[in-house]
Amino acid sequence: MSRWQANPKQRLEQAALDLFIEQGFAETTVPEITARAGLTKRTFFRHFTDKREVLFTHEEQLTPIVASLMAGAPASFSPLRLIKLALETVAVTRFEVQFEYLHRRRVIVQSDEGLRERETRRQSILSEAISRGFVDRGVDELSAILAAQIAVSVLNVSVDRWLDEEGKRPLSDIIRGSLVTLQSVLAEPA
Amino acid sequence: MSRWQANPKQRLEQAALDLFIEQGFAETTVPEITARAGLTKRTFFRHFTDKREVLFTHEEQLTPIVASLMAGAPASFSPLRLIKLALETVAVTRFEVQFEYLHRRRVIVQSDEGLRERETRRQSILSEAISRGFVDRGVDELSAILAAQIAVSVLNVSVDRWLDEEGKRPLSDIIRGSLVTLQSVLAEPA
Repeated sequence: MSRWQANPKQRLEQAALDLFIEQGFAETTVPEITARAGLTKRTFFRHFTDKREVLFTHEEQLTPIVASLMAGAPASFSPLRLIKLALETVAVTRFEVQFEYLHRRRVIVQSDEGLRERETRRQSILSEAISRGFVDRGVDELSAILAAQIAVSVLNVSVDRWLDEEGKRPLSDIIRGSLVTLQSVLAEPA
Repeated sequence: MSRWQANPKQRLEQAALDLFIEQGFAETTVPEITARAGLTKRTFFRHFTDKREVLFTHEEQLTPIVASLMAGAPASFSPLRLIKLALETVAVTRFEVQFEYLHRRRVIVQSDEGLRERETRRQSILSEAISRGFVDRGVDELSAILAAQIAVSVLNVSVDRWLDEEGKRPLSDIIRGSLVTLQSVLAEPA
């Protein structure tokens, strides 16, 4: 059973994901989604601009959440400490609570070139926002860009592992492990 | 004056880049490119599948070059040492020799959403190849993926700086500096 069954938006998401997996993303139409959810097209378009949007509403909330976490953190936090704080916070509050959704979503996104491109684009928007967040905290631009790219890489790699492992370990543990691995890759005189 | 003026392929590239900058990528047709180069459409299609290809032939050679560098490096090289070797080699042999081309190319790629997406896609193909190269050398998968993403991030960030600075410093110096910056961002107990 899914965890999210209550409101119209959630029913539409559930129906859309079911159909995308059963018959393919390209093959699924908005009327099929609304029929499956027992709702009208008008309700659908109140929540989403198109069927693709169904797969990106949660994800696009990440950027403002991370930006506000960064703006609110103590000025004394180093970039690495802030990356840890931000990644662990979103892991616990945004990812771990919706394993099933994210697991199914990944299957769909990977099946379609256009969706993969939008996913990549979303990740570069997140990276740019993190980089700006660091610059606003007084970090030099080069460190800011590199720290942001590390943060997004670690998040992506860790989420993939977490989904591959069927959520066996908490995502936040995997993120910590990935950061330690990254440090050991770079732990040598340059 | 451009450095590459000799053979038909180079004349086509030169003409294409000139036109893309003068009148826009979307607005430029293959017949316009061949007219400007004083060559036939048949010659164009012997070298390129379409006008987009003109902007990606050099770039797509990077992946096999890096893969073969990785396969040929001493087994004793750590991932970081190998990243340094590979990035500095391509910097010197593939980038520094064609500053003008790369500078103009960036203006064009950034002007068009489809080109930006293809560029991003090309970078993820490079990252996957580097990751496979590390796995083939016995590096564990998590370290391999993270090391590959670092390598591509450092290359991208460094090339951008190098172009921003109008090639004032050698790209290989900028790459070394970026790696040191990355190490200092991560140099703390995790």
